[in-house]
Amino acid sequence: MYFPAYFRTFDLTEEISMSKNKTFAVFGGGSWATAIVKMLCENLDEVGWYMRSTYAIEHIKKEDHNPNYLSSVEFKPQQLKLSNDINEMVSYADYLIFVIPSAFLHEELEKLTVSLKGKNIVSAIKGIVPESSLIVGDHFYTNYNIPLKDIAVITGPCHAEEVALERLSYLTIACADEEKAEFIATKLRSDYIKCSTSDDIMGTEYAAMLKNIYAIAAGIARGLGYGDNFQSVLMSNAIREMKRYVKKVHKMKRDINDSAYLGDLLVTGYSTFSRNRMFGTMIGKGYTVKSAQLEMSMIAEGYYATKSAHELNEKRGKKKAKTPIINAVYEILYENKEPKKVFQKLTEKLN
Amino acid sequence: MYFPAYFRTFDLTEEISMSKNKTFAVFGGGSWATAIVKMLCENLDEVGWYMRSTYAIEHIKKEDHNPNYLSSVEFKPQQLKLSNDINEMVSYADYLIFVIPSAFLHEELEKLTVSLKGKNIVSAIKGIVPESSLIVGDHFYTNYNIPLKDIAVITGPCHAEEVALERLSYLTIACADEEKAEFIATKLRSDYIKCSTSDDIMGTEYAAMLKNIYAIAAGIARGLGYGDNFQSVLMSNAIREMKRYVKKVHKMKRDINDSAYLGDLLVTGYSTFSRNRMFGTMIGKGYTVKSAQLEMSMIAEGYYATKSAHELNEKRGKKKAKTPIINAVYEILYENKEPKKVFQKLTEKLN
Repeated sequence: MYFPAYFRTFDLTEEISMSKNKTFAVFGGGSWATAIVKMLCENLDEVGWYMRSTYAIEHIKKEDHNPNYLSSVEFKPQQLKLSNDINEMVSYADYLIFVIPSAFLHEELEKLTVSLKGKNIVSAIKGIVPESSLIVGDHFYTNYNIPLKDIAVITGPCHAEEVALERLSYLTIACADEEKAEFIATKLRSDYIKCSTSDDIMGTEYAAMLKNIYAIAAGIARGLGYGDNFQSVLMSNAIREMKRYVKKVHKMKRDINDSAYLGDLLVTGYSTFSRNRMFGTMIGKGYTVKSAQLEMSMIAEGYYATKSAHELNEKRGKKKAKTPIINAVYEILYENKEPKKVFQKLTEKLN
Repeated sequence: MYFPAYFRTFDLTEEISMSKNKTFAVFGGGSWATAIVKMLCENLDEVGWYMRSTYAIEHIKKEDHNPNYLSSVEFKPQQLKLSNDINEMVSYADYLIFVIPSAFLHEELEKLTVSLKGKNIVSAIKGIVPESSLIVGDHFYTNYNIPLKDIAVITGPCHAEEVALERLSYLTIACADEEKAEFIATKLRSDYIKCSTSDDIMGTEYAAMLKNIYAIAAGIARGLGYGDNFQSVLMSNAIREMKRYVKKVHKMKRDINDSAYLGDLLVTGYSTFSRNRMFGTMIGKGYTVKSAQLEMSMIAEGYYATKSAHELNEKRGKKKAKTPIINAVYEILYENKEPKKVFQKLTEKLN
């Protein structure tokens, strides 16, 4: 269920008010990681920040901003506990917010020598861990024995760039333990960030992953020359497909039109800055998958998501969800089929 | 209920195949009217076209295109039955497709001396008739005794400009008599137009009206400096509000995420060309309602829709739908409240 922030009272339980001194650390050096550090700095005296690049760390310490992402955001280095040692940072924090691209998460976690026992894991990653074919929450639950109540998800709709500009944005924090979700929310809220909470950890995380596939589809359509009329039909079909898919993954009462699902789909699907959409546009324009990937400095997360989401669905056999859009993207990216022909077929299946 | 076109068999009933020779006429000279004439010309030997401007009619006859709208579209004048006499055109056609802005419909219909009895009325108008405060279908039902089964609605998501470019677009034809809806659909379908049918005449028409209010809201937000993150939250709240509103108007099983509702909302709410969105943007930037209206050559339909939709809802008293977005737009447009303050309050109500 999804509870808007303004329905809640802010009388937190004793347990949670005791946890006022809990420490938070962000793992990752990209734009979304930088935005989350900025949000936390509005509320906490100290914020842990792990990133691999010592150059970036030194730059932040001297110049007050991340040299690579959201460089307009000014930090107070004395408020940051910066480190490029993942074990040091895990030891430091009670709440570990992971914002490492899913494709590199496994590699980073391999460095761990300290235990994650007793830690709260917060995923702000949109995607599937290729090594385990699991969404991030599931990956920690399955491979690190983190109890479900200690796993949370931060989800949009939110472009990091607009957080940098302090433009009003809404987040949803999902956790099986909604009091914990609310506690995390208190550390992220500010004049320009509103947070709702939800207990639909599976649904929000899958939605965040699926929307990248639909953004690729939107890009392919654009690249092939389809216009705004078609784009709106595609998004309207995408949200219905997402609803069917997520229902198969975890059946519960949810309103798929809440911001965490539909809002997140729209902010990505309509964004001309989305990496996934851009990747799709290149494919639609005739680039091969390889050349599109070479052209972009980073691989779009939706590329992996397409494979995983498709395989996961196919495994259900007759019980699989009807997913014409995911299937079309899969055929183009993984079966080398011609985008134009695949989309011509797809248009017959939409309504 | 909403039936995608590809589920249907095309074995039309005898009654409908008998109606092959039915005549169609479009009433209106704007871009959407021009687009619908173009669609009909793909299927019919002759298409009636009423417009007020004799200049435009003469231009089409000589130069093969409408001088004022979608001027890239080439017509074959011998295929058109053009007239600026509304009575002549009503007498000519079995199916009357009205595409006159709702604000001018009453004035046009006042010219009628011939009866509408036995005619099929098709509304492609998005809005409320100010004189009767009724949506167009209702206006004909109430004031002209047209039976419900003879009233149909053509709804998007569809920018006329993309029809001119023959970019793939999807329409929904709604009629209580779904066989009639399908018959109309056969006259509009082509390589670039797909048509679904629906029996939700009330819901589709109200949705088409409400989306213009939400487009004004999107414009106001843009004008006030809110970004893409907020826009996606606004649209996600708008579709939920539309669902609540339409349910009060006419309760039936419908998927609000179908193209006729959500798709139509998106194509307008995300369009930088939408008259309603542009009007809202000016209001958000500080124009008064009057100066914004003066600046635009035509009044945005959502301006009237806001008043009607708000009043209709208020009349329900305690049973009214929760409509924070419509209320906010109403306060700005009709109660002279400051957009910035109204939207600050609105942001607290969204999630």
